[in-house]
Amino acid sequence: MKLKDIGEFGFIERIRKGCLIRDKSVIRGIGDDCCVFSTSGEIATLLTTDMLVEKIHFLLGTISPYQLGRKSLAVNMSDIAAMGGTPREAVISIAVPDTVDLAFLDDFYEGMKSIAEEFEVNLLGGDTTSSPEHLVVNVALVGEARVDEILYRSGAEVGDVIFLTGPVGSSAAGLDILLKKREVDEEDLVEAHHDPYPHVKEGRIIASMKVANSLIDVSDGVAADLNHICTESKLGAVIEEEMIPTTEAFRAYCKRFNEDANHLSLHVGEDYVLLGTVPAQAEADLREALRSQDCEFYPIGRTVSDAGLKLQVRDGSIKVIGASGWDHFK
Amino acid sequence: MKLKDIGEFGFIERIRKGCLIRDKSVIRGIGDDCCVFSTSGEIATLLTTDMLVEKIHFLLGTISPYQLGRKSLAVNMSDIAAMGGTPREAVISIAVPDTVDLAFLDDFYEGMKSIAEEFEVNLLGGDTTSSPEHLVVNVALVGEARVDEILYRSGAEVGDVIFLTGPVGSSAAGLDILLKKREVDEEDLVEAHHDPYPHVKEGRIIASMKVANSLIDVSDGVAADLNHICTESKLGAVIEEEMIPTTEAFRAYCKRFNEDANHLSLHVGEDYVLLGTVPAQAEADLREALRSQDCEFYPIGRTVSDAGLKLQVRDGSIKVIGASGWDHFK
Repeated sequence: MKLKDIGEFGFIERIRKGCLIRDKSVIRGIGDDCCVFSTSGEIATLLTTDMLVEKIHFLLGTISPYQLGRKSLAVNMSDIAAMGGTPREAVISIAVPDTVDLAFLDDFYEGMKSIAEEFEVNLLGGDTTSSPEHLVVNVALVGEARVDEILYRSGAEVGDVIFLTGPVGSSAAGLDILLKKREVDEEDLVEAHHDPYPHVKEGRIIASMKVANSLIDVSDGVAADLNHICTESKLGAVIEEEMIPTTEAFRAYCKRFNEDANHLSLHVGEDYVLLGTVPAQAEADLREALRSQDCEFYPIGRTVSDAGLKLQVRDGSIKVIGASGWDHFK
Repeated sequence: MKLKDIGEFGFIERIRKGCLIRDKSVIRGIGDDCCVFSTSGEIATLLTTDMLVEKIHFLLGTISPYQLGRKSLAVNMSDIAAMGGTPREAVISIAVPDTVDLAFLDDFYEGMKSIAEEFEVNLLGGDTTSSPEHLVVNVALVGEARVDEILYRSGAEVGDVIFLTGPVGSSAAGLDILLKKREVDEEDLVEAHHDPYPHVKEGRIIASMKVANSLIDVSDGVAADLNHICTESKLGAVIEEEMIPTTEAFRAYCKRFNEDANHLSLHVGEDYVLLGTVPAQAEADLREALRSQDCEFYPIGRTVSDAGLKLQVRDGSIKVIGASGWDHFK
């Protein structure tokens, strides 16, 4: 049996047992965007890590080293944002093949430092090693949050409004353009894929309001990530096709090349916007809080007691959608 | 110019600038075994990360998956030990090629959990992804320490006694056996290379005594790691050949195959014992504290004001030794 036979999440379930050795002071272990453990008082330390592997997560010929540096840190910041936390301290491991030169690495770190500075994150060390063939980057990021503000995947309740903090699908369309080697004037889509912007500000606003019930970032795709919330919260969801926020560039791309907009916006991922749920009576407050600080809020559906994900399409009919999204082993 | 032209430490110096965005609360950034940042009160959080790459750090045909799991965590624990800290919470990233099966991964995590349990470390999550060809493991480990107990590379003073907490060279001899495909009955040496034991207990005893001036773990080799202490503390060192602790198995191996014992014990590394300095008047107290708790203490020389590393060989003459040790890019 191979890893691809059970998938990443199957594998996590497989290795989960025995991982928590000492549960005192651990607030959340495996199974959320970050692990959480208390230090003291009301501030908890968050810790997350993400590995980016050449030919799996990126192609050296398409992403610039500057963008790769930004993205390596951004995807980790997005995990901290998804808990409502503030990213603080990062350590970076990099395995470098002989074919990658110093100019590349300089640009890589320039990119990383640029986004670190934007979010006031320290790069505090790491590990640099050689690699026999492929470039591999790993970032471990520590963040902090007030214990009573942290938002988990497991807190959703039946009847919650499901919301997004930004449009989805652009990154997927950008990847589609790269994989199909399409000639397009539209650079925004490829840039959405190469240089995602973590919604740390949105996460902090949502967490400090203390009205939302659950939160996650859209890394695997709206369907897969919403499914994480549903599974952890033991409920289901109905989302509406016409409420899924997308950009004009995305819609134009899908129309021009006859691509399935629902597939790209719901089942591919790497949007790194936040996806959450909030009780209906608090929706207006949360929307106003976000919009008053130049952030976005898009309601896309409701949580329901029946398990599973459903999509209400434009003609009003309801269809069951799978939870499929990005899984490296499937 | 390539990374190998400037080496790992040259590269760190190159990227160091601009990494510290917000220096409030940062106690130590790039350049030591761990970064240190305060949380609150007298307890600081330590964070370290190490990446192990197939064909660079290990060969799948020689190390068992169980040992690889243990070693991946052990080398990070050793970094926490080298600050006098206690390892606490770990996150593990792993990039898995299609050729590695689940049984391998199960054994890998069993090994990791075994050493995690021995040291009461939680495995709190991570990232699992595929890899185009080589297995890559990254561990990020958070530890804790009292701020007034943490030991740095930079604290050595002239006249300090230089000490080791265990024998050196066995791991290098084990690697030598593997690389030269030698048939030997002696399994201890290969095991020293494949299953190093982090000196967390020793680090805690040394730190809590508050008498030592500096501490590092021997990962790159005694010469290279002592050179880190000397450079950071702005002094030099004279060590004595006949005082370098080695095992009987190591000495027998060198004799049988006519290998250079000084090269293997001083210039290869991966011993993961601790190397430190203590004022002469406190040497006896530290030695007794360690030995009374079944730990070892070996004085090997003195720090001096003249820069550079010198070795007093058995005939009494002094020779200058280079700081060379393990560097992936040289």
